[in-house]
Amino acid sequence: MNRSKLSIEELKELKELARICRGDILKMTTVANSGHPGGSMSSIDIYLTVYKFAKLSPEAPFAPNRDRVVVSHGHTSPGVYSALARLGFFNIEDVITGFRHPGSIFEGHITRGIPGIEWTTGNLGQGLSAGVGMALAAKLSGRDFHVFTLMSDAEQAKGQVAEARRTAVKYNLNNLTVVIDYNDAQISGRASDTMLVNIKENYEADGWKVIEIDGHNHEALAEALYEAVNKNVPVAILARTVMGKGVSFMEDDVTFHGKPLDVETCRKALAELGVEDDLEFYINRRKRLPETREQLKPPLEVITIDSGKPVTYSVSQKMDNRSAFGKALADLAVLNKGKSPIAVVDCDLKPSTKTIDFEKVWPENFIQIGVQEHNAATVAGSMSVNGVLTFFTDFGVFGIDETYNQQRLNDINKTNLKVVVTHVGLDVGEDGKTHHCIDYIGALRNLYGFKIIVPADPNQTDRAVRYIVREKGNFVIALGRSKLNPIANLDGEPFFGDEYEFEYGKVDVIRSGSNATIVAIGQVVSEAVKAADCLRKEGIEVTVLGVSCPIDASFDSVKDYLKGNVLTVEDHNVRSGLGSILAEYFVDAGFLPEKFEKIGITGYAVSGNKEILYKLSGLDSESIIEKVRKMLK
Amino acid sequence: MNRSKLSIEELKELKELARICRGDILKMTTVANSGHPGGSMSSIDIYLTVYKFAKLSPEAPFAPNRDRVVVSHGHTSPGVYSALARLGFFNIEDVITGFRHPGSIFEGHITRGIPGIEWTTGNLGQGLSAGVGMALAAKLSGRDFHVFTLMSDAEQAKGQVAEARRTAVKYNLNNLTVVIDYNDAQISGRASDTMLVNIKENYEADGWKVIEIDGHNHEALAEALYEAVNKNVPVAILARTVMGKGVSFMEDDVTFHGKPLDVETCRKALAELGVEDDLEFYINRRKRLPETREQLKPPLEVITIDSGKPVTYSVSQKMDNRSAFGKALADLAVLNKGKSPIAVVDCDLKPSTKTIDFEKVWPENFIQIGVQEHNAATVAGSMSVNGVLTFFTDFGVFGIDETYNQQRLNDINKTNLKVVVTHVGLDVGEDGKTHHCIDYIGALRNLYGFKIIVPADPNQTDRAVRYIVREKGNFVIALGRSKLNPIANLDGEPFFGDEYEFEYGKVDVIRSGSNATIVAIGQVVSEAVKAADCLRKEGIEVTVLGVSCPIDASFDSVKDYLKGNVLTVEDHNVRSGLGSILAEYFVDAGFLPEKFEKIGITGYAVSGNKEILYKLSGLDSESIIEKVRKMLK
Repeated sequence: MNRSKLSIEELKELKELARICRGDILKMTTVANSGHPGGSMSSIDIYLTVYKFAKLSPEAPFAPNRDRVVVSHGHTSPGVYSALARLGFFNIEDVITGFRHPGSIFEGHITRGIPGIEWTTGNLGQGLSAGVGMALAAKLSGRDFHVFTLMSDAEQAKGQVAEARRTAVKYNLNNLTVVIDYNDAQISGRASDTMLVNIKENYEADGWKVIEIDGHNHEALAEALYEAVNKNVPVAILARTVMGKGVSFMEDDVTFHGKPLDVETCRKALAELGVEDDLEFYINRRKRLPETREQLKPPLEVITIDSGKPVTYSVSQKMDNRSAFGKALADLAVLNKGKSPIAVVDCDLKPSTKTIDFEKVWPENFIQIGVQEHNAATVAGSMSVNGVLTFFTDFGVFGIDETYNQQRLNDINKTNLKVVVTHVGLDVGEDGKTHHCIDYIGALRNLYGFKIIVPADPNQTDRAVRYIVREKGNFVIALGRSKLNPIANLDGEPFFGDEYEFEYGKVDVIRSGSNATIVAIGQVVSEAVKAADCLRKEGIEVTVLGVSCPIDASFDSVKDYLKGNVLTVEDHNVRSGLGSILAEYFVDAGFLPEKFEKIGITGYAVSGNKEILYKLSGLDSESIIEKVRKMLK
Repeated sequence: MNRSKLSIEELKELKELARICRGDILKMTTVANSGHPGGSMSSIDIYLTVYKFAKLSPEAPFAPNRDRVVVSHGHTSPGVYSALARLGFFNIEDVITGFRHPGSIFEGHITRGIPGIEWTTGNLGQGLSAGVGMALAAKLSGRDFHVFTLMSDAEQAKGQVAEARRTAVKYNLNNLTVVIDYNDAQISGRASDTMLVNIKENYEADGWKVIEIDGHNHEALAEALYEAVNKNVPVAILARTVMGKGVSFMEDDVTFHGKPLDVETCRKALAELGVEDDLEFYINRRKRLPETREQLKPPLEVITIDSGKPVTYSVSQKMDNRSAFGKALADLAVLNKGKSPIAVVDCDLKPSTKTIDFEKVWPENFIQIGVQEHNAATVAGSMSVNGVLTFFTDFGVFGIDETYNQQRLNDINKTNLKVVVTHVGLDVGEDGKTHHCIDYIGALRNLYGFKIIVPADPNQTDRAVRYIVREKGNFVIALGRSKLNPIANLDGEPFFGDEYEFEYGKVDVIRSGSNATIVAIGQVVSEAVKAADCLRKEGIEVTVLGVSCPIDASFDSVKDYLKGNVLTVEDHNVRSGLGSILAEYFVDAGFLPEKFEKIGITGYAVSGNKEILYKLSGLDSESIIEKVRKMLK
């Protein structure tokens, strides 16, 4: 394995490989009749040199200590694939044949799980954050690997890049090197005309060291890389290149950004490169590819976490779910510190999200990213699959709404992220509509991999937090802001008490009665229980079902409660949350309840204390009682 | 109206008002027992000076030519409200009494529509983009107003700020001035410890002029403002301040960021300020406030647009919906240029979104923001309510997913934005899962104000584009990528032909038959029609309903078609789109169809051409035929 200076022989080999790879790039895009040859050819010398230089071996491409190479401009996949193939990571014939074909793993944008590829990219401006996450993970897990993040110049405009840059400096990530393919060309023309970014000045203003070189000179690249990995600050290598480099009629012509050559033109280009024209072979081979394949299984290290013992809070003491989360999180810190790395990524909200208790116990694993949510979400996602059990904590509007696409990309990357958002719902109160996250379920219904848990009280919160650290995959726990009494059963004991074990998808029968059924979620379960207990006194027996896992709720198991008068109650947009999911269940299950009503939020709300906002939206126990009475008339 | 140098008397008045406003800030937060006094007191001298200096009058606060003041750190609402009230824009008693109360317009975060407030903020880092949008709108509509954007230092970390900064330089917005409240304090402690931002270096690296002053010195502020509005480049005034300034025990203590004083402590602070203690009066007055009020109606100028004549494309010619959009847009440019300002905001995708034709006709109104989607979405939203009919065009994954929260905030701001996203669905094909926007309906179901239109073919696209420019409010038109034949009726004539007029919410009965009903949307309506026409040949009569407005589809009007075998078909996540909306309709309407099946996307897809991806997901006509046959068995 490498990371020493490249030898003259190695540099000579790279030069020759670069010529061959340029042929590969043209072939695979022409055979697929799709893809991005221009940027691939400007980046190929960078790819070859970095993959050669990095401590990374085709024999053990997922070794925990490997250097990580993140390519942020994922549309240059032809360049990445050809470089990796020619360096022995996989077979070039499979790439050229299968590029962008459903039967092949070589997708249009590079995909995590392919040897040598650490992060699925394609939406620009995300790669540096992923690189920062990996470099941080190296430090937190005590590993000595280096992270190379390769980027385009056009994507330097993206604000998330600036956020990542500052984070690298704050955490002194001297194990992080950036190489920018500076071809000054993008879809609209010259990058500097489209949206001028003073790249060098921007990096320097944020405290980076910048090295400027010719990005087609392997020797200069190798020298700069060697200098970078030995510097004590993050280094950006600004590599001047030419789009379409290597084929005379493609050079510096942006029409080849996203357009392959036709077969005839490709032949001419291959001739110019002195590369064998075997297009027929590949075109025919492609026709025989199957239309499906197995999914990639990207590496996920198992980190054994001691999830501790559940805590049961007394029903007589008011408490907020977020404090129960904070205490469980601090407990995890105490139990696992010095054993298994857990980290918390925060965005300047630690007193509110209650992660401050974790920080006290384990300050070096508390990552404070400030008001840079996009970056924080990607950093956290990337850390979560690089040896650190990672929590990302934020208010709902930031951790879900503002970072919606970052979470989507985390999900596509099959991360192992534990997102805990507080301050969801009108329960937030006076901060008003910009801060009312009332779409947490609606947003996450769109993401296939995320599981969402909306606990009803502090006791369920405690158990849910301990549950998600034992499970693999992406989870969101959504918590309100205000204090409430833990839910009691009819004996006055905690409903989610010592006997209760959290089971994902389970619907909890909190009260049982035959006159009506209230299906509630999260912070308003309390209101539903209060309503049911009041109604019981006047002889109306009401079932209360607590749904904590709306997307995967097992309504079938409580079917019998759902046939009469059914009322859903949610502190969420009524159009996209629990009520909508239950309606879908009815149609799928093939029955309708006698009556069905939904209480939820029907428009952006105003500022006000939670009690008034709940009353105005019909979410308080009084309004629920009223509604049930009306249904029974 | 002002914008000349402030006189000595005026400066003296500001100094006295500042003392009084500090009292107001403390009173309103204490009376509300909620809110952010710390930052309000550090910003108050800035607010008073800027509002005094700006060309802005309480008599005509919404005059089209007024200067715009955008406050980006909207949580300092107590400061903003007190400054505006004391300068005569509204009654201070109403503010102190009603702050953060549902019966008052003075919400926790400042709200567009209150005199003097141009943009609803609260989620940090958005204000400069809104300011850029207004400054651009001034230039495009030929108006001579200046835009002042006031920000906190903590939010300088947000990447969107860098995006906005570059945009201001690119478009030479010398009518834009930034003032930054540099108190070096945020929730987590010192801003420079939380996430160091080299603010001065960052602005200078992007080409701004920076002036550094003491932010509590009205004279220095006024001087700097005067210098700024007369410079030929965008200027940032870096105003050093102290959080909690004015009350000894609050100064530089971040615990007062988001915590009001209790009544006793407030009395002490008021005494120190030499301000009357009338807390009792306000506490009692607040108790008498009503719990509801009328919604604010922020100003929206009516721009009369000539929407031209619909174009009918022949059913024999394959065409993509996005080209139909591009042609309609170019037509609007020809018809309105020199009459009513229309602008297009693009993110380096003009050849793909087909906005390039608009640019050719009206280059000066084509705003190229590059790969800076967050900024672009906010810029466009802000332009749309400042005298310019604004389109924001992008790929679905960027215009909806990446900018989801920016669109949510546009919606909260009651903008008049016309979003057109192309490349939605698996129809995108080879670019793969990072680029497949399959949640456009699911995401927009969460936003109360946005209407979404998903046209079935180029003819319907043309009419939808002309429709949205005639209508007020926020619209999204979602378009696929690939070419298709315009839909024909059974006579072979265009279904959406000369006789057809687009009607929002209408469900189109494209084929009619009694054996089964296919409910389809967007790009796959063609597949459904193809399937129905094939099935007809074997004696199976199938209804095809085209739903172009999924969120507000009037299913009631086609109820009779929905009682038998019903199949939904959508190039969208099956969990959150048309199928889910129709299921909800069934439950609301109180009936179930005999059979109900949904075809849609059940997981992140791979790279591949559209035909194969459709086949794999069951979206092609063959699969639909198969499904209908099975349902009828």
